[in-house]
Amino acid sequence: MAKSLESEHPIKAYGYAAHDTSGKFSPITFSRRATGEKDVRFKVLYCGICHSDLHYAKNEWGVTTYPVIPGHEVVGIVTEVGSKVEKFKVGDTVGVGCLVDSCRSCESCISDCEQFCAKQVQTYGVQNYDGTQVYGGYSDHMISDEHFVLRWPEKLPLDSGAPLLCAGITTYSPLRYFGLDKPGTKVGVVGLGGLGHVAVKMAKAFGAEVTVFSTTAAKKEEAIEGLKADHFIISKDEEQMKAAMGTLDGIIDTVSGNHPILGLLGTLKPNGKLVVVGAPEKPHEVAAFSLIFGRKTIAGSAIGGLKETQEMLDFAAEHGITADVEVIPIDYVNTAIERLLKSDVRYRFVIDVANSLKAE
Amino acid sequence: MAKSLESEHPIKAYGYAAHDTSGKFSPITFSRRATGEKDVRFKVLYCGICHSDLHYAKNEWGVTTYPVIPGHEVVGIVTEVGSKVEKFKVGDTVGVGCLVDSCRSCESCISDCEQFCAKQVQTYGVQNYDGTQVYGGYSDHMISDEHFVLRWPEKLPLDSGAPLLCAGITTYSPLRYFGLDKPGTKVGVVGLGGLGHVAVKMAKAFGAEVTVFSTTAAKKEEAIEGLKADHFIISKDEEQMKAAMGTLDGIIDTVSGNHPILGLLGTLKPNGKLVVVGAPEKPHEVAAFSLIFGRKTIAGSAIGGLKETQEMLDFAAEHGITADVEVIPIDYVNTAIERLLKSDVRYRFVIDVANSLKAE
Repeated sequence: MAKSLESEHPIKAYGYAAHDTSGKFSPITFSRRATGEKDVRFKVLYCGICHSDLHYAKNEWGVTTYPVIPGHEVVGIVTEVGSKVEKFKVGDTVGVGCLVDSCRSCESCISDCEQFCAKQVQTYGVQNYDGTQVYGGYSDHMISDEHFVLRWPEKLPLDSGAPLLCAGITTYSPLRYFGLDKPGTKVGVVGLGGLGHVAVKMAKAFGAEVTVFSTTAAKKEEAIEGLKADHFIISKDEEQMKAAMGTLDGIIDTVSGNHPILGLLGTLKPNGKLVVVGAPEKPHEVAAFSLIFGRKTIAGSAIGGLKETQEMLDFAAEHGITADVEVIPIDYVNTAIERLLKSDVRYRFVIDVANSLKAE
Repeated sequence: MAKSLESEHPIKAYGYAAHDTSGKFSPITFSRRATGEKDVRFKVLYCGICHSDLHYAKNEWGVTTYPVIPGHEVVGIVTEVGSKVEKFKVGDTVGVGCLVDSCRSCESCISDCEQFCAKQVQTYGVQNYDGTQVYGGYSDHMISDEHFVLRWPEKLPLDSGAPLLCAGITTYSPLRYFGLDKPGTKVGVVGLGGLGHVAVKMAKAFGAEVTVFSTTAAKKEEAIEGLKADHFIISKDEEQMKAAMGTLDGIIDTVSGNHPILGLLGTLKPNGKLVVVGAPEKPHEVAAFSLIFGRKTIAGSAIGGLKETQEMLDFAAEHGITADVEVIPIDYVNTAIERLLKSDVRYRFVIDVANSLKAE
């Protein structure tokens, strides 16, 4: 299997892969395709570690094909472009997020919502249209059709900007789509982790009044002092939840652990929207009355289209939004994932790939 | 208690009330307030029987104060108007739906969404601002501030139009608010009862392509032949549900019995909306992934504001929309409610109040 990995494509590549459900990472040599007409090849500089990486590494969603090389928050420098590439040239700084291909012809693709294309190719963990496995950013270089490559804004830091390619667009997109991007809008953010802390920054940049919901009292200072949130509510405190009833226009719920949402719905105004971007194992329980009175909404949202992701990066650069990150060498990834499991990171690990990944 | 009911207000009134959790109706004498400056008094002609009437009569929601005189689909003729009434005169045909008062000053009231006013006064089953109990349309006459009285369109039948004041607005409003009112929109309607059959008619009048979901195969002919629905799906048939995956822009779910909604979410396109207007006893179970992939929405919707209700009546008159009704004398109400419990009506009972209710 290792042999076919190394020889199935002409360009040698190396990275870090998980090889079984232990989820332990170790170096791997593999191969990437030759540069097609519309392809952009780039040297990976930084790659964020997303919770999804962990789920895939341990096959927690039951869909992993090993070896898996994760990483969908990737920033790099272009080293080669195909003959028909229009947007990029060698030396450009670029990013790749959660998608590297889609059908380009369905209703979703045509309306710049490639994230809903039924034939989308995610950045790792799936197969490309040619039937070969796709590998992510825990690697020396990547290649993608230019449509799925983002221009990196000059003012945006490479390391702390990398997580925006997943955590940034995942929170920016619903704030925009559900109309929570107007000054004075009252926005709740549930959970203060990798997604949540970026959601707070995005909402504040839109001019919203932001309320953070957390089960951890100790996060109040981080929320108010660090992230400039306006209010902090312990979601298990009935008095605090009661006092907030009917006050919010919308909520971005980033929590992927099981948690009750009835109280959150109660904090919405009429026409208020609860948008879930975290996916708990158990289904949410939703009493119809809690939606009917006040015409309330529960919706989901997944990353964003390529056009919107570019818009988000430009917005982040303009407003000085980055993730709070801890930059690590790639051989620290196993420890990082253990710490991530314990939420022991404020708030995102980013691998300094270029300076720490060496060919075997 | 009967004495206070008869004497607490100056105007004698009579009707049909349920007196205990048996939910059995019998004649009652009570009283209504004197005509205030902005009040419209009217003789009740027709009153629809809504499922809510049954829940209140039997105290199934645990909030009933007995005796309860239900009825919130009321059509009548104006017999007296207050000195400052501007919209109506004696002899006008009018309607009253589910609301008879609200605060008039909150954000919801100001934006013509009185149905979300926290201080709303429903047409029966609650207390008015003066602390006295409110009584509905199973009675000889009613009185309401003119703001809550609807102009009855000339072309709209009085008997079969009456249920529109609840069933009509409950289905019209979400079709409008959630953008399911455009020609060619693909709309699902779950359940073919009092609400569902009107939902089909409304959606068809908007030019939608309508799919009816039912658990009852026998309703296919009613749906397709009778109501001109375009498609009919047995919601328990996995093959049929699978074939419909990703095809609908939105769904109006009128079912108030417990039922699964995961399959319904599957039939939505990206950005599709499932709007629940029926309230099952058990909470819906909603897997976050079923919303996240495709940015799908579950929302609730409750009747509509007064302005929108008037708009709905005018729309119904223009498009010849009425409910399919069985007109009954008021002393048939106990039998009607037994039949309603067995869904043995196509699709709504309407009481011919004026011709069957006599003073004791």
